[in-house]
Amino acid sequence: MKFDIDGILNGKRLAISRALSLVERNDADLIELTDALHGHLGNAYRIGVTGPPGAGKSSLVDRLIEVWRAAGKTVGVISVDPTSPFTGGAILGDRVRMTRHYKDTGVFIRSMATRGSLGGLSGKAQDAADVYDAAGVDIIVFETVGVGQVELDVAQAADTTLVVIVPESGDEIQAMKAGLMEIADIFAVNKADHAGAEKAFRELRGIVELRMRAADWKPPVIKTSVVKEEGIAELEATIQKHYTYLKESGTLKQNFRHRLRLKVRDLILERLQSQFWTPQRREIMEAAMQKPVDEIPSPVQLVALLFKDY
Amino acid sequence: MKFDIDGILNGKRLAISRALSLVERNDADLIELTDALHGHLGNAYRIGVTGPPGAGKSSLVDRLIEVWRAAGKTVGVISVDPTSPFTGGAILGDRVRMTRHYKDTGVFIRSMATRGSLGGLSGKAQDAADVYDAAGVDIIVFETVGVGQVELDVAQAADTTLVVIVPESGDEIQAMKAGLMEIADIFAVNKADHAGAEKAFRELRGIVELRMRAADWKPPVIKTSVVKEEGIAELEATIQKHYTYLKESGTLKQNFRHRLRLKVRDLILERLQSQFWTPQRREIMEAAMQKPVDEIPSPVQLVALLFKDY
Repeated sequence: MKFDIDGILNGKRLAISRALSLVERNDADLIELTDALHGHLGNAYRIGVTGPPGAGKSSLVDRLIEVWRAAGKTVGVISVDPTSPFTGGAILGDRVRMTRHYKDTGVFIRSMATRGSLGGLSGKAQDAADVYDAAGVDIIVFETVGVGQVELDVAQAADTTLVVIVPESGDEIQAMKAGLMEIADIFAVNKADHAGAEKAFRELRGIVELRMRAADWKPPVIKTSVVKEEGIAELEATIQKHYTYLKESGTLKQNFRHRLRLKVRDLILERLQSQFWTPQRREIMEAAMQKPVDEIPSPVQLVALLFKDY
Repeated sequence: MKFDIDGILNGKRLAISRALSLVERNDADLIELTDALHGHLGNAYRIGVTGPPGAGKSSLVDRLIEVWRAAGKTVGVISVDPTSPFTGGAILGDRVRMTRHYKDTGVFIRSMATRGSLGGLSGKAQDAADVYDAAGVDIIVFETVGVGQVELDVAQAADTTLVVIVPESGDEIQAMKAGLMEIADIFAVNKADHAGAEKAFRELRGIVELRMRAADWKPPVIKTSVVKEEGIAELEATIQKHYTYLKESGTLKQNFRHRLRLKVRDLILERLQSQFWTPQRREIMEAAMQKPVDEIPSPVQLVALLFKDY
């Protein structure tokens, strides 16, 4: 057994850290860990923080941690790095920014590279969050640079999705903001001290009003500035309000079920693939691919061939 | 048969357009289309264009199309929109920007929403590119906003990956640039008329020199400005140079094989999943998920149960 389940359940740092490493390695023991954690989950509140690069997500999370710690809550951060492990750049950046919380025994911070991994965030980072959850951590934060699929993954993994944007223009960025509408529970217009913040704030609130007319929860838009220490308390209060809304509407339990479902689907996919790719089938595939380009059978024919004795 | 293979092979606009719609719908006929296209592929040169939002990718592609058309080449563009079909924002933006080429019968432009689709770009957009390829289009451009997985998908789908960046600062953006190193074949520092362009250019060239010392192909860094009409010819010449390099080193044929392999894997995954999820197994899953949260079996147990008679 490569993990210490009692240590995890008792919130021991070393046990947690080792379990997270096991998640990152994604080896055979992970199945056992998953199984051992089950039954101890569903108590943590999971918050996703996403937005374009340079929006100041880490700094904002850093301040939120401060507020949560003052209220006696423990926090687990998972910085999801969608760039490659090869670079390490973003990872280092995040770590440096939150360094001051490293000495705090009530705060856990972990960076994970998810690039290229099957299931992306909904797989690896979800497993990591389960470790925090079982360890009794109160609030789990997924932090990532969000464009496209990554955003969707964050939204699926989290109970509350906070989208951080900055005052900026450009068609594509406008479109991105619109695209974020379907996943955002709360918007923070960060760097509110910068020029154009008021305009960005009003624009965004306009889009929300227009699109979310019929929604139960209309994503609030909060102006924040880490530099000027503005809006942090309001943001935290809004997050709490959303938590209450989720709890009362039964959404928290629904989310728990939804995440289990995703986990089951991931495990099934892995197992189906590993069962399918026997050495024999690999050989058939390789033999076909080694042929001269003109003689390679079509993918459809090749698939038919591979499924013949399945 | 919901497609006109002769029309496609003869480069008929209507036939191409209908086949692309079939790819987007992703229904049962797609398998037949895939099979019919095989044997007519491998002649087009596939270029991926990626970079952060607002970098000016569409405008740059627009100018490159101009150069290619002047040289008598036909061009097919696939604008991959990683945001949702719900918004349509980015799609409209791109379309508007390239409108002037719409009347040109040698240019094909198509936007595709890939968000949430299995396989993402490597699936859907690849199928779309195969339609262009079979139709005799000379140059295929995949254009997308790139962060994380999307970039990797572009790089896998394309022979040449052009990364467009703009003069900007910020830790995360620096990290992104570094993260792009592994996929970029050519860098364009666009909006070279903006402040900081020279600095961004030198920085990037420095990173390339450092990291790519041992590489056969060191990604050239080109300064471009659509507004000032600068660097476009140089960029086009560099793309040609890369094409020659790929051809002479045998990489083009390798890429063809690699894409076939991905296609086979996608088809297998789809088939495995659809075979597995019988109505009976769906029922087992649903029944488990409807239980009170405390009584839901662990994912591992549930997977074991689902695989019992498989």
